Amino acid sequence: MTSSHRDGSPERRLRADRARQAADVIRQQVVQRAFPDGVLPDERFLATEFSVSRNSIREALDLLREEGLIDRVPGVGTVVVARKYSHGLNQLMGLAETLHEHGTVTNDVRALRVIKAPSSVAARLGSAEVVYVERLRRLNGLPLSLDLTYLTLDVGEPLLSQDLENRDIFSLIEQTSGQRLGTAVVSLEAVNADAHSATVLEVPRGAALLVVERLSHFADGRPVDLEFIRMRGDRLTMRAELRRTSS
Amino acid sequence: MTSSHRDGSPERRLRADRARQAADVIRQQVVQRAFPDGVLPDERFLATEFSVSRNSIREALDLLREEGLIDRVPGVGTVVVARKYSHGLNQLMGLAETLHEHGTVTNDVRALRVIKAPSSVAARLGSAEVVYVERLRRLNGLPLSLDLTYLTLDVGEPLLSQDLENRDIFSLIEQTSGQRLGTAVVSLEAVNADAHSATVLEVPRGAALLVVERLSHFADGRPVDLEFIRMRGDRLTMRAELRRTSS
Repeated sequence: MTSSHRDGSPERRLRADRARQAADVIRQQVVQRAFPDGVLPDERFLATEFSVSRNSIREALDLLREEGLIDRVPGVGTVVVARKYSHGLNQLMGLAETLHEHGTVTNDVRALRVIKAPSSVAARLGSAEVVYVERLRRLNGLPLSLDLTYLTLDVGEPLLSQDLENRDIFSLIEQTSGQRLGTAVVSLEAVNADAHSATVLEVPRGAALLVVERLSHFADGRPVDLEFIRMRGDRLTMRAELRRTSS
Repeated sequence: MTSSHRDGSPERRLRADRARQAADVIRQQVVQRAFPDGVLPDERFLATEFSVSRNSIREALDLLREEGLIDRVPGVGTVVVARKYSHGLNQLMGLAETLHEHGTVTNDVRALRVIKAPSSVAARLGSAEVVYVERLRRLNGLPLSLDLTYLTLDVGEPLLSQDLENRDIFSLIEQTSGQRLGTAVVSLEAVNADAHSATVLEVPRGAALLVVERLSHFADGRPVDLEFIRMRGDRLTMRAELRRTSS
């Protein structure tokens, strides 16, 4: 391997460093479904590919197996077992809209009612009373995310009689209000699942969750929909295209 | 509390459900530094605010304490201890550029060399040889993220002699190449820290990490910089503004 450390000293790279380096590249190939038939090349090939020892490749594959992305199948090799899907961040789209190619999204409606908004929610939505919706969202029956949604009263009340089990809230809002959604401000965090959320999402306690907070506005700029979403880290990735502004 | 479940049946909401609901709203206030002097209102006030019992509020605060966001200080109350910062997703900015208000970003350069690119990296960068840079990034000395970076040879080689300990790669690329960066394609995942990454980032094994893969292009569209970034979930959030496209 060509190697030229800046000061000429040998780099002290642990096998774990080399394994992580390979695992990151392979992870992306797994998520992007880059392997024909979902079968990874054998360890010898991967060792050559990444210019590392077979032990390092084994350790890389161990990391991805621990994440639930791949598994070993006797007689077949290492296969992709992840059912991980990409959710576009650039377009403000509902989950069912985004994932329709992969199957059917259904929602267990765990709560649906009019509540007095906590003051910070009231301030952000400009609404003292709100409709609260709590949904466990599934793709082909398997839990994907737990969504806690606050809607302004005028936007939320017409949804009380709608098909929240099978429809995205975004499309229901646009249909019942006759108005278009415009922009949303989103923040993303990685959080370990607490015991109760883990049970609901059917993951081990402490599993990494992608926590999304999203405030969506009508096209006229009025905020109408505030959501707190816990996505299973092993099932969803978010994708976006960014542009560097001139500085 | 006003409550109107759709079919008239009483909702079966566990205390854990009410605690999670309150915790999500409070988490956002913590991250947005909404509490004067970093001190949360007392439990009685919060119970009224969220229309739940004090036990539910205690459980909500327990969740946030487990995430390392708040702590109890005798004689003071519940205080914000999070050192969590927001990284803008919309602008393609380096970490030091983004966080300059909060302190100094320094980088431990763990690896820096020319390598033969793994084929999927070579394909994405259009470069068979690449410069590999591995950095542990710190804010005011505390680990924030572990970044594995692949640069095309023409863009990476001039960086071998640059101040990678103190400068963002984005600004170094633009300075040494004389070209502007344009767009980047980003994907975000939540992953539990493996043992070795946990040690490097100084977090417990299994801690939730925000894993970002980012392919950045010059303004002319040529891909030049592929990064795999592990961010500490307790220290960074990503923010973005989205727009709903007409469908």
